[in-house]
Amino acid sequence: MSQRSTLSLSRRSQIAPFLAMDIMEQARLVAESGRDVVHMEVGQPGTPAPRAATDRVAVAMAAGEPMGYTVALGRPDLRAGIAELYKRRHGISIDPGRIVVTAGSSCAFILAFLSMFDAGARVALADPGYPAYRNILGALDLEVVRIETTLETGFQPTPDHLAAAGSLDGLLVASPANPTGTMLGAEALRDLATYCQENGIAFISDEIYHGLTYGAQAATALACSDDVVVINSFAKYFSMTGWRVGWMIVPERMIRTIEALSQNLFICPPHVSQIAALGALEAETELEAHKAVYAANRERLLDALPPLGFTEIAPADGAFYIYAGLSQISNDSRDFCSRLLHEAGVAATPGLDFDPVRGHGTIRFSFARTEAEICDGIERLQRFIGT
Amino acid sequence: MSQRSTLSLSRRSQIAPFLAMDIMEQARLVAESGRDVVHMEVGQPGTPAPRAATDRVAVAMAAGEPMGYTVALGRPDLRAGIAELYKRRHGISIDPGRIVVTAGSSCAFILAFLSMFDAGARVALADPGYPAYRNILGALDLEVVRIETTLETGFQPTPDHLAAAGSLDGLLVASPANPTGTMLGAEALRDLATYCQENGIAFISDEIYHGLTYGAQAATALACSDDVVVINSFAKYFSMTGWRVGWMIVPERMIRTIEALSQNLFICPPHVSQIAALGALEAETELEAHKAVYAANRERLLDALPPLGFTEIAPADGAFYIYAGLSQISNDSRDFCSRLLHEAGVAATPGLDFDPVRGHGTIRFSFARTEAEICDGIERLQRFIGT
Repeated sequence: MSQRSTLSLSRRSQIAPFLAMDIMEQARLVAESGRDVVHMEVGQPGTPAPRAATDRVAVAMAAGEPMGYTVALGRPDLRAGIAELYKRRHGISIDPGRIVVTAGSSCAFILAFLSMFDAGARVALADPGYPAYRNILGALDLEVVRIETTLETGFQPTPDHLAAAGSLDGLLVASPANPTGTMLGAEALRDLATYCQENGIAFISDEIYHGLTYGAQAATALACSDDVVVINSFAKYFSMTGWRVGWMIVPERMIRTIEALSQNLFICPPHVSQIAALGALEAETELEAHKAVYAANRERLLDALPPLGFTEIAPADGAFYIYAGLSQISNDSRDFCSRLLHEAGVAATPGLDFDPVRGHGTIRFSFARTEAEICDGIERLQRFIGT
Repeated sequence: MSQRSTLSLSRRSQIAPFLAMDIMEQARLVAESGRDVVHMEVGQPGTPAPRAATDRVAVAMAAGEPMGYTVALGRPDLRAGIAELYKRRHGISIDPGRIVVTAGSSCAFILAFLSMFDAGARVALADPGYPAYRNILGALDLEVVRIETTLETGFQPTPDHLAAAGSLDGLLVASPANPTGTMLGAEALRDLATYCQENGIAFISDEIYHGLTYGAQAATALACSDDVVVINSFAKYFSMTGWRVGWMIVPERMIRTIEALSQNLFICPPHVSQIAALGALEAETELEAHKAVYAANRERLLDALPPLGFTEIAPADGAFYIYAGLSQISNDSRDFCSRLLHEAGVAATPGLDFDPVRGHGTIRFSFARTEAEICDGIERLQRFIGT
């Protein structure tokens, strides 16, 4: 047999790894070396799924439920429960038939992009933004159109940005956004949706941080139009990251296409996670207590960071992140985060993950952990930057 | 706002739905109407995950384990456990670093195809075959090269088929195969791997039905070469379809690419399912008992079907399917399956799912259910065809 390798790598698979993941791995190594680490790098709650979720799973385990494939679009009771959530949160009636349960928002993005865009389509995203957006788009042969946003527009795109971006096939927005926590108000969201509608641009709204807001409630794109794709998940507000269960809401005429794609690409979302999600929908008291912790952490950080020289802090209206400028402290966010981890035992994510062009000058802190941990992190930052 | 719709469907998303899924849905409706249905259409065991798996999950639930994201490649203990399985089953040492845990074999196929093939690449598959192969390939802009196989080669491709297929970038084989249950012996597998190696064709081996064989053990492509991609899952032998946990084994130089793709496309496989899988690896006694049921069912069907006029039955050496010709009974498998379901209460899958060209003349029976159910199914078939 010839020794020549026959497995060559495709061009489209050559995407950047998450720096956040690399920082997590570095943090693990630092922790293994015996040093304790404050985790302000992770995009997930430190809490488990709510008790009502894990109780349901425990009951299913005891009963020996088969947990076979569900239908590709998800368990009908879960789709009905998600529809109820929109009624409660937004006063909107959504036909459960338009709700598609997915293996996390990740699979919802794949289904949305594949169902609407052929290779070469141009999809606009805000920079800074969640890095997987551009990497999934790239892997699926779609062209990412970066919209460089600034603090002036809350790091959110506007119709003016879109008008200046050339021909577009899609726009993906996130509100509250990662890494900034900024939101699009109902009117700003409507303006974008209208612009897209009038210009034949598919509108995708990532609403994964809904439920985690610290002032006004987040607006849903479903209030603007039925002709949008909304993506959400049980990961963040419901504290179920590793369970991989999310959902999307699609226009009625997309359902059959999404169903066939989902059958073939994924068969179904994890059955056990769908059962857990049913419980999570009934755990408001526990989940609101988590949010109160995040709110307190957020206040502490917003007080502590500016005196340390962190500038241009985005209005952290939602999610559990603070995105800050480093210009008074460092012009190399990767180096700064590495020193912060190794010298002070604080893990945070360099802005380069979210903004490849300007992110050398920014950093993201997550405040999804306990109050004690965030207080400890602030003290360490103060000592580190004070020295 | 203009009423013109802005969400149009992509060309690449226009794939055929699974007929098997549609049959499952029809069977559900028939059952709801009060008629009991014998399920010989489903590609999954009727049994739950093994007790050792569900016990681990119950313990994790009681302990309030956070179940956050795992690393993208999967829990190190699970990767080590899978490496052990290859030692036990095949006497092969696999570096756990080459093992990638995925959300079912479905996500392993997506990762394999994206990492190795750019748009337009030509990938060969046997007809009849698992329909999701061609549909995932199509959605990712890859060209499916169908190899029309016959009973003569056990419905498996040969180097001669490949030589006649024109220029190829990849070959995907399955042994044991769905829908036929046929296997590639160690030598046939090696011949194909060698041909691919010599001709610069990437070789992907779907080994999801390994462990479910009724004579010789299935050979793994890893015994031929390290320069192959092997895909497997906890779904079938381990009786964990709805848990969505599988794995792939890749050459070392592909790991970093697969890791970055996996981080961005999926973040991680479901954490709870990885914990269950750890238990499943220790449940051999329970799982071998399931296999004994399938073996008995298989014998019964192989005895009962030929006298009823089912012909050209593929050697069902593995998996839990029998694929049979219908020519003495019907020339329209879809109509036959529909009548069989509605008139006799037996659900089975028309061959068209697996072979769009010749499948009007074939049918797939699954024997993954209890002995009582399969006996009942055989009696119903006898009454139905006898009338």
